Amino acid sequence: MIIVHKYGGSSVATTEKIMNIAKYLGKIKDKKNDVVVVVSAMGKTTDTLIKLAHEITGDPDKREMDRLMSTGEQQTIALLSIALQSLGYDAISLTGRQAGIRTSGHHTKNRIESIDEKKIKKHLEEGKIVIIAGFQGVNENGDVATLGRGGSDTSAVALAAALNGKCEIYTDVDGVYSVDPRIYPEAKKISYISYDEMMELAFLGAGVMEPRAVELGKKYGVEIYVGKSLGEKNGTVITAKEKIMEEKVITGISVNEDILMVNIEEIPTYAKNVYAILEQAVKFGVNIGVISQNDVSSEHGSFAFTCPQSDKASLEKISEILKEKFERISVIINPYVTKVSIVGIGLISNIGIAARVFKVLADNNISFHQVATSEISIGLIVDEVMGKKVAELLAKEFNV
Amino acid sequence: MIIVHKYGGSSVATTEKIMNIAKYLGKIKDKKNDVVVVVSAMGKTTDTLIKLAHEITGDPDKREMDRLMSTGEQQTIALLSIALQSLGYDAISLTGRQAGIRTSGHHTKNRIESIDEKKIKKHLEEGKIVIIAGFQGVNENGDVATLGRGGSDTSAVALAAALNGKCEIYTDVDGVYSVDPRIYPEAKKISYISYDEMMELAFLGAGVMEPRAVELGKKYGVEIYVGKSLGEKNGTVITAKEKIMEEKVITGISVNEDILMVNIEEIPTYAKNVYAILEQAVKFGVNIGVISQNDVSSEHGSFAFTCPQSDKASLEKISEILKEKFERISVIINPYVTKVSIVGIGLISNIGIAARVFKVLADNNISFHQVATSEISIGLIVDEVMGKKVAELLAKEFNV
Repeated sequence: MIIVHKYGGSSVATTEKIMNIAKYLGKIKDKKNDVVVVVSAMGKTTDTLIKLAHEITGDPDKREMDRLMSTGEQQTIALLSIALQSLGYDAISLTGRQAGIRTSGHHTKNRIESIDEKKIKKHLEEGKIVIIAGFQGVNENGDVATLGRGGSDTSAVALAAALNGKCEIYTDVDGVYSVDPRIYPEAKKISYISYDEMMELAFLGAGVMEPRAVELGKKYGVEIYVGKSLGEKNGTVITAKEKIMEEKVITGISVNEDILMVNIEEIPTYAKNVYAILEQAVKFGVNIGVISQNDVSSEHGSFAFTCPQSDKASLEKISEILKEKFERISVIINPYVTKVSIVGIGLISNIGIAARVFKVLADNNISFHQVATSEISIGLIVDEVMGKKVAELLAKEFNV
Repeated sequence: MIIVHKYGGSSVATTEKIMNIAKYLGKIKDKKNDVVVVVSAMGKTTDTLIKLAHEITGDPDKREMDRLMSTGEQQTIALLSIALQSLGYDAISLTGRQAGIRTSGHHTKNRIESIDEKKIKKHLEEGKIVIIAGFQGVNENGDVATLGRGGSDTSAVALAAALNGKCEIYTDVDGVYSVDPRIYPEAKKISYISYDEMMELAFLGAGVMEPRAVELGKKYGVEIYVGKSLGEKNGTVITAKEKIMEEKVITGISVNEDILMVNIEEIPTYAKNVYAILEQAVKFGVNIGVISQNDVSSEHGSFAFTCPQSDKASLEKISEILKEKFERISVIINPYVTKVSIVGIGLISNIGIAARVFKVLADNNISFHQVATSEISIGLIVDEVMGKKVAELLAKEFNV
């Protein structure tokens, strides 16, 4: 079985760390395994590049941002290949394009359309360790396109799917915790978690895994290991629900501070008006999260949604467009909110959970802006200053 | 007429400098000109990347080095495009591959084979400013390949040739001087210089222009301007000999410290042995400069050549191979040499020049290791410590 290894930015932050990864991968190769490895940009490289662009303008062209950001991964693959070759291993680096990763969609937020794995297989058959740039592919124009935040995870899982392999993701945390340990130090490490639960936690901002990566893992049945150390296997396995024996009611709690809430008021909330708003959001590639509205069809209705903080510039443009279209409209962008979510497969069959959540809020006099529920999660938008407290209270309530 | 502008690393070292270039190019575009611009990596980016690779190994794989080094230019083109777009200009960045620049040869030292200019012309017709990554193209394997030291100059001139345009190269010096002003402060700036003279000066290490760029300029009749400021035209024009009215006997003197001298001794200097040595040099992509030999066909002959300092690692490998092949051979690599050359079209018709050169050396008791002459140049390999003195003496002798 081919294992696709993935190393994030902090794991490849120095040439010394890259050399250590090369030694580890070499040992795996020595045991006659096929090795494919996906890497991110070194340390804070991507952030530094984004900062350069923002020195020029607050709203840089997205095709050019993809070009700029994609260089970080190209540097890492070259250095890792140099390291492996210096140890005597045959290795080859491939960009997303060269690895056959075809994408489509908005620049800086592309999705993988397909992977032509023939070239990778040919290199593996020749005994090479194949090193692939994460976070990037090539779009229909032949331009490099990036997959958005955490896109290297998506690259790794998609490659594992294309190669019928497993995926091992090495990061700076040693697995998936029930709550972010920086917020709630008593949080417990989870050994096994289902794709669905992980997806909710990922979408809700637990930060360990990119949700699209987990979604792909589920779709193609790719088992994903998430851990820290080179070698020791004490992280978290993300797999199908059927493979997990013991289930808790609530698996984890996520806290996502990287959101904005947008309140649109004084607009008749007919479906066509809501569509007019969402149409603009799609056009600008804004990732809409929780949606809620009051007073359906009222002349003075209001409509609210959340989205990542990084969409702020796009939202300001949308706001201008909407103000031209709707005379009296008021668009308020509130960055001081946090989303706290509880996640667990057990939610489906435990009808009292929502009540317990709101009792905790009521007992502590905590108000919330929005609530969103799914089959396996309950999410609350609260003031940013209350986020951590809400997570702690819920973690204690549900003993995660 | 299309003008291909080229900006070197120091001209694009900060986003502020990039913004100034964008403003300047915008003004040219405002006057209804087609604008194509080639850029290098920002400041010392390429050196920093090379340093990273050398932290891993002294002899990094060259395909991977090309991958690594080519990222710097990709960053600059993205940032310049972002800057132009932020000023309201339609601009697009293209990698070497996307600009249709096909190359072949040794990685890190590729040559441009052809340019398919159709895509560039299409973007120009659409009113875009086209920004192209210098120093790189795509080879027959679809891999990014770099053109070696100063390769962005070559990219710019080759593009000007493909587009039937002129080329303007902006650098951190304000033109071509008769001698490097850091070595000889009384050196004079040259307003017009022929391709042949510039090629000699470039090959001989004057440092301002990549010789292949000048060679291409000559081949395709591309007029090349080299200068410093954005706008003022007081640099040097490199053009055909016929277009230069007034000629001096000696145009300039170059000092090249970036060379090694390799002495190979105790080898029968039959042609087949010399070939055996040069064959290895070609195999490792070593750029041989001056060649000389003593005692043709002697059993204890010696053979010497110069090459750039950067070929040292390759030479050490070649030395190992030769020692296996020739039992008694001695290979001595001497990095403490400098090449001083005088260049001028006037050399062809002035038979006394060489005599004057050696009289200067004799009068000052200066010895030399090798001498090389061409129709328009005389080059001397001297001890590194004597390089500057020799250049000064010759500059005074020939009043350049």
